[in-house]
Formats: sequence, structure tokens, C-alpha cells
Amino acid sequence: MVVGGDAAGMSAAAQARRRRGPDDLGIVCFERGRATSYSACGIPYWIGGVVGSEDDLVARTPEQHRAGGLDVRTGTEVTAVDLDRRVVAWRSADGKGEEPFDSLVIATGSVPMRPPVPGIDAPGVHGVQTLDDGVALRAALDGARRVVVVGGGYIGLEIAEACRTRGLAVTVVDRAATPVGTFDPDVGAFLADAVRGLDVELVLSDGVAEVLTGPDGRARGVVTASGRELPADVVVLGLGVRPNVALARAAGVPLGPSGGIAVDARMRTQVPGVWAAGDCVESTHRLSGQRVVVALGTHANKQGRVAGINLGGGYATFAGVIGTAATKVCDLEVARTGLSSAEAEAAGYAFVTAVVDSTTTAGYMPGAEPIRLKLLAERRSGRLLGAQIVGRHGSAKRIDALAIAVWNAMSVDEVLGLDLSYAPPFSPVWDPVLIAARKAQEAVEADLSTC
Amino acid sequence: MVVGGDAAGMSAAAQARRRRGPDDLGIVCFERGRATSYSACGIPYWIGGVVGSEDDLVARTPEQHRAGGLDVRTGTEVTAVDLDRRVVAWRSADGKGEEPFDSLVIATGSVPMRPPVPGIDAPGVHGVQTLDDGVALRAALDGARRVVVVGGGYIGLEIAEACRTRGLAVTVVDRAATPVGTFDPDVGAFLADAVRGLDVELVLSDGVAEVLTGPDGRARGVVTASGRELPADVVVLGLGVRPNVALARAAGVPLGPSGGIAVDARMRTQVPGVWAAGDCVESTHRLSGQRVVVALGTHANKQGRVAGINLGGGYATFAGVIGTAATKVCDLEVARTGLSSAEAEAAGYAFVTAVVDSTTTAGYMPGAEPIRLKLLAERRSGRLLGAQIVGRHGSAKRIDALAIAVWNAMSVDEVLGLDLSYAPPFSPVWDPVLIAARKAQEAVEADLSTC
Repeated sequence: MVVGGDAAGMSAAAQARRRRGPDDLGIVCFERGRATSYSACGIPYWIGGVVGSEDDLVARTPEQHRAGGLDVRTGTEVTAVDLDRRVVAWRSADGKGEEPFDSLVIATGSVPMRPPVPGIDAPGVHGVQTLDDGVALRAALDGARRVVVVGGGYIGLEIAEACRTRGLAVTVVDRAATPVGTFDPDVGAFLADAVRGLDVELVLSDGVAEVLTGPDGRARGVVTASGRELPADVVVLGLGVRPNVALARAAGVPLGPSGGIAVDARMRTQVPGVWAAGDCVESTHRLSGQRVVVALGTHANKQGRVAGINLGGGYATFAGVIGTAATKVCDLEVARTGLSSAEAEAAGYAFVTAVVDSTTTAGYMPGAEPIRLKLLAERRSGRLLGAQIVGRHGSAKRIDALAIAVWNAMSVDEVLGLDLSYAPPFSPVWDPVLIAARKAQEAVEADLSTC
Repeated sequence: MVVGGDAAGMSAAAQARRRRGPDDLGIVCFERGRATSYSACGIPYWIGGVVGSEDDLVARTPEQHRAGGLDVRTGTEVTAVDLDRRVVAWRSADGKGEEPFDSLVIATGSVPMRPPVPGIDAPGVHGVQTLDDGVALRAALDGARRVVVVGGGYIGLEIAEACRTRGLAVTVVDRAATPVGTFDPDVGAFLADAVRGLDVELVLSDGVAEVLTGPDGRARGVVTASGRELPADVVVLGLGVRPNVALARAAGVPLGPSGGIAVDARMRTQVPGVWAAGDCVESTHRLSGQRVVVALGTHANKQGRVAGINLGGGYATFAGVIGTAATKVCDLEVARTGLSSAEAEAAGYAFVTAVVDSTTTAGYMPGAEPIRLKLLAERRSGRLLGAQIVGRHGSAKRIDALAIAVWNAMSVDEVLGLDLSYAPPFSPVWDPVLIAARKAQEAVEADLSTC
């Protein structure tokens, strides 16, 4: 049985089905919403009109899953799990009931973070977690004129751009001095410029103290911690998410130190026969060694696959995360992997940094775009601890090279020796990654004399 | 002293100068041609008019190098090296002479392969190795109508496209059944289609038996092995290159089994005080373990840097190659890393392959382009042995992720766990690299039952 019908849950179900046929294993999948296997990450692009149809975001419909031998029950919320009796209680528009299980996959995803301020639960305050959230937000934006986005994280900025594309006046409020706090401030500053370039008002170093409501009880704006009043027809929560563990916690499935459901490498919870995957679980960060919750579709798919293979009698493990992420604002692309400067310090690493500017193709080719790389290398060892990229078209995806270097614990001197692809339409003869590694290695060497 | 003023030679000179000042070490650089530090790889784009000026291809002029404390002597060919007397003999338009050295860097590059057929040395048969070659070819193309390119390798196809851009009728002749033999034939077939799409005539599975010459002694076409006569005003050699080792061989500097100058990891030849770098040396292939000559600007720059650091009293090594390369024909991009199927077989590996089709962004985003990946994974171990990519805009540079996986001897199962960047504008939620790894892993597992 699977609770949650998006990436993690349906991947688990599909993999289990591949290994065990319908006669061997019945698989019931409960999904609270209408849709299965949809791209929550695509919602901003649908809202902005870049993606034409809501249906485009659905990778696999309930009907398609049913044709694959899964008993998918949409519009059906699991309200409780009884681990002793091995049953779940469910509720739908048609009624409620119980369903027994032998094995259970918890894939309940995440919920938007809500600052604990007055008015935050008022109508007109929208999250962007589920496709149903997206549908509700898009409807709310029809006829709206002013939007306040609370939090300038990835989703916050993507929603801000989408709202600007729709011609709305947009203000983004963030407590940090630069948006997307998982980037170093010097990289975040480029993001801030790009956002302002969209005529989005950026209110930084300021939080939301209150959501104002009108006589009808609906949100009509926010007041910031510094006392600024920002009127809005719609308020969007862009503060990131927290794992949706209410069901698991109530059932007695142990959580980890990060607040996500604790799982082992095979995605087993600490309760026999109960698995968990996706935004609701915690993962091991391979550099900090800490347990972290990273809500990202790519992890959810992989974790769901691992859970399903193991549940189906196979063997697979989830290898952990290193914090790779990317986004774009207008034509500015940013990406990161490994640890940011703040994260590296928090994890106890001493490191040097190197920043280089280069181009995405040979400089003499038409279409060469600027790209800036920032590398963090551990003192003495020169181990690559993290990388951040900011640039124009063709920049962000290059983070993967650095992500794999981080994954393999390569030193920047080793990175400098890599045999990367070169041709004038694709990179300078010294690839930007190699230039950055060279400069980082020089910084490591210069620092050695002071160690 | 440095012989050869392009990437390898000038990188070596510049690095040595960084470590030892002019009072400590005099550095004389001999260059036969007019230019230093130019991009030979950019010549096709200059000939095709994509790059506006020949000067754009020059990263650093002789004057700039001189300002950096190097005694650069262009238009000066080194005709002999006397290792006993530690002098080189040189010749220029102004005369000839000798110059003593303590340390010597041989960076004599490569020369185009010439099939040993009648007429191959006739005027009108052009290589594309040096900037001077490029200037001569471009001049020859003015007023030409028909071009035959002998050999459909990287440079051959790039030159063919450039000539089509100039409106010339182009025929490419290659002995293999598909162009660019370092790709598997199924990938090469896409290249063949792209080349034909440019209205280039592709004569495959046929070699050149003779270069026809006119009464003036100039090339006027070729005759193929099958007897076809292909008239041409200009014949371009696109068969690839061989290391230019005439000077080294005559001096008694030992060559390796591949025919390139034998060097150790620090780019030292077997003669004390004599270093070599760039297209004229052989490198270790990290997968086959064999010594190979790979003529590519990226290696030349790295090897020159290593030679210069060591010559200057520092310590650096060149880590070898894994055969990463990329090119494009019109809007078709291809890239490869590691071993092709033929290379893997020759190296004694048994392997399975997986081919997957995906898109460069989430499939629902506008601008999603098709991308096909082919992976080779070793039997049993699942070690990634090689990868090939063919696709549209945004495809080729993704080979770097696979190159770094190959470099680190990752298994496809390990690749499947990688934390690669994901956002809808940059990849599907299952990155094409991960999809390919997943399919390759399934192939490894299916094969295991037969091992």
C-alpha cells in the first residue's frame, strides 16, 4: 500500500509492480488530490504561461497507472495509520473506510512553511506544493493585480517571474540580504539584480510580521517586520517546505533529527514493513554527514524507485545527496552543488574560495555567454567542497560536472586534470570548470604556506 | 628553450616564466609560423564566416608574450636539435644560426595525415593544422566552386560545413561506413544524415586512390578506390593528424609505441632536460591502459602547463586521457567519452550497451530538444566504459558528466545515484544521464544471469 500519489509514491508502486505481479501483490495507492505523478516544479511555468496546459505537467495519470496494474484511489485522504492492526483509515467525498496492508510506503510529501504570524491561514494565502495548489493559485491570479511572495527561495522567485509574465505587480519579501539563501551572498546578489530587472520589488532583510485581512476575511496584503505595509490581492508562500510527517508521527513512525521520517539506505523506516520516500524523508548529506531534508523531485523519484525495488524483493540503496540545485530568473541561470560557504563553516570545514569569469563557448564564437564559477576547496587537502555557477544561457547545467567531482571527493588539483569535452561551440579550450579548478588549486597552495 | 609557439609550447613557456624570472631563466620560443597561441580548432569557424577575423583566433600574440618576458621568434624554424652540444639549429627568412639551451620543450604539434597516393603533395591539397594552413585554405577557397574533403573526421566535417556556408559544392570521402570513426556506427549514422542535410555529398566506404592534377600541376580532383572521379578546385585533408616528431626522432629523443614522443607523467622525455607536450606526445588512456596520441587543444594546454611548472621547479603531472570529444554539424551535436564499442573490444572488455532517448529539458517545456545517449558498461562490474551523445542544441556538453563518471571508474549503478541538477528548464526530473544509467544497469543485471 502506498500513501501519496506523486513522484515517490508512484515510483515505488510501479517498481514493486515490476517485480511482483498483480496475483502476487495487490497495490493500493491513496492520493488526496486529483492527479498522480505530476511535476510540482513545473507549476510556476504553467502559471507563467510557458507551459500551455496543466495536463502537460502530469507524467502519468491515474488511468495510466491503473492500466499498469495499480489500484489508484484519488481524492482519497489517509487520515490514520494503525501499525498494530496493519490498517489505514481513509476518507473521500464518498465516505470513509479502512484498508489493510502488509507493507506500507509513506510518500506524503511536504507542506509549505508558514511563518507563525497573524492571518497566515486566511483565504488568499497560497502555497505551491501540489497541482491542486497550483490550480487554486492560478485561479486566484485571474483578476488579481498585486501579488506579494513571502520568501525569495527557488519557488518564490519562479512564481514571482511567472506573475510578472502575467503582468501583475509583484513584491518579494525575504528575511535574508540576498534571495535563495542556499547560495553565497555574492552569487545571490546576481539573483537579486535579475529579479529587480523583471520590475519585481525586492524587500530584503525584512520578514513578514502579519498578513492583513479585509472585512471578508481574505488576505489583502502583508506588514513586514520593519513595519512596511505591502498591499496584495494574493499572497504566495515561497519560504520553502517542511516534510509532511503528521500521519507518520501520529502513527508512531520515528522521525530523524531533521524532522523528516528516518529511513535507512534502502528507504526502510524503523517500523518493519513500512517504507518512506520523497519530500517527507530525511537523507544523508555526503559532505556534512548530517541528516537533511531536501525536497526535490529528482530525489523523490530515486527514493521511490529504491523503496519499490526493495519492497518488491530486490536490492537497491539511495546514495544520499550533495545539495545540487539549479534555477533561472529570466535569462540568468544559477546552480549549486555541495556546500555553500555558510554550510561548509557550519560543518566544520576550513576552506579557500576561487571565483572565475569565463564564457560558455570559445570567446571568439558568436553566442558566447558569460559564466561565473565559485569553488570552495578544503584547506590542505584541496578537496572540492562546493561550487556555485551564475551565468547566462548554457551555464547552469554545467554544475553537474562539479557535482560529480564533489560526489567522488575529488581535489581541485584532480579536477584540473579532467578530460572534459572541448570544441569552440561548447567551451573555451580551458573549460570554465578547469579554469576554476586551476585558480582554486592556486589558492590551496597559497594557503598551505599559512597552515 | 621552446620549439613550437602554439598552445603547448607557449603554456610551458608562460608557466616556467611564472616560476622563474628573466634574470634567472632566459626563455627563447621558436615558432615556424607567424602566430602564437592560436586556436587551430577555430579555423573551420573562421573559414565558414562564423568567426569574423583571423585575429579572433589568436589568444595571445607574439608581442603579448614578449611583454610577458619571453623571447619569441616567429617565422623561425628549428631544423635540428643537437642533444650532445645542447644547441638547436634554426632557419628564418633572414638567415640561420644556432642557439644553446639548458632545458628544451618540444612542442612541434602534428601534421595532417596524407594517404600515400599519387598527387597527394600537389598544390591545391590543403591541411588545416596551423593558422597559416587556414589562411592558405581560405585564400584557395576564394574563387573555388568544388571542394573534396578527404576524410570525414571532426575537422573534415567542420570544414565541409564551413565550405557549404560559403556556397561551395562539397564532397566528403571516407573509407568507413559512417563518418567520425571514433563514434559507434549507430551514432555516426546521425552524423551522416546531418551532413547530407547540408547538401554535402557523402562518399562512404570508399577511399581516395589518387589526386588528379591538371596541366599546371595543381590538384583538380580525386579518384576514389572504387574508381569514382570527383572533380574539385580544392582538396582538403580531413583524415586526422599524426604527431610531428621528425625533429625529435632525428635528434634521438625516443618515441613511444604510438609514434608520439614518449613522456612520463611530468612531461619529461627520456632525455634529461628535454620535455615535450601537445599533439606531438603520447598520453596514457586511463581505460585501455595504452599509450595513445590525442591531438586536442585542451590536452596541449594542460600538458604545456605541466611541462612548464616542472621545468620551472614546481611539481605537476598530466593525468591522462579518456577520449572525450565533441563537435556539431549544423544543429546536430555529438559527443563521446571513454571507449567506443570497437575500442572497448580491442581493449579486451566485455560489455553491455544501453541506448535511451530523452529531452534536454522537461518534456513539457518549450525548447525541449531531443537527446540520445548510448552507454557502454562492463559485464559483471557494471563499470561505465564509455558514453556517446547525439542530439540537438544543449546536448553535447552533457558528456562531461559521463566523462567524470568514467574518469572515476564509477559503475552505472553508482551513476544512477548521482545528485545531478534538476529544474524544468534544464532537464527532465530523471536526467537523461540517469535514465541511461538506469537502463544500462538493467542491462548489466540481465546479462549477469548469463555470465
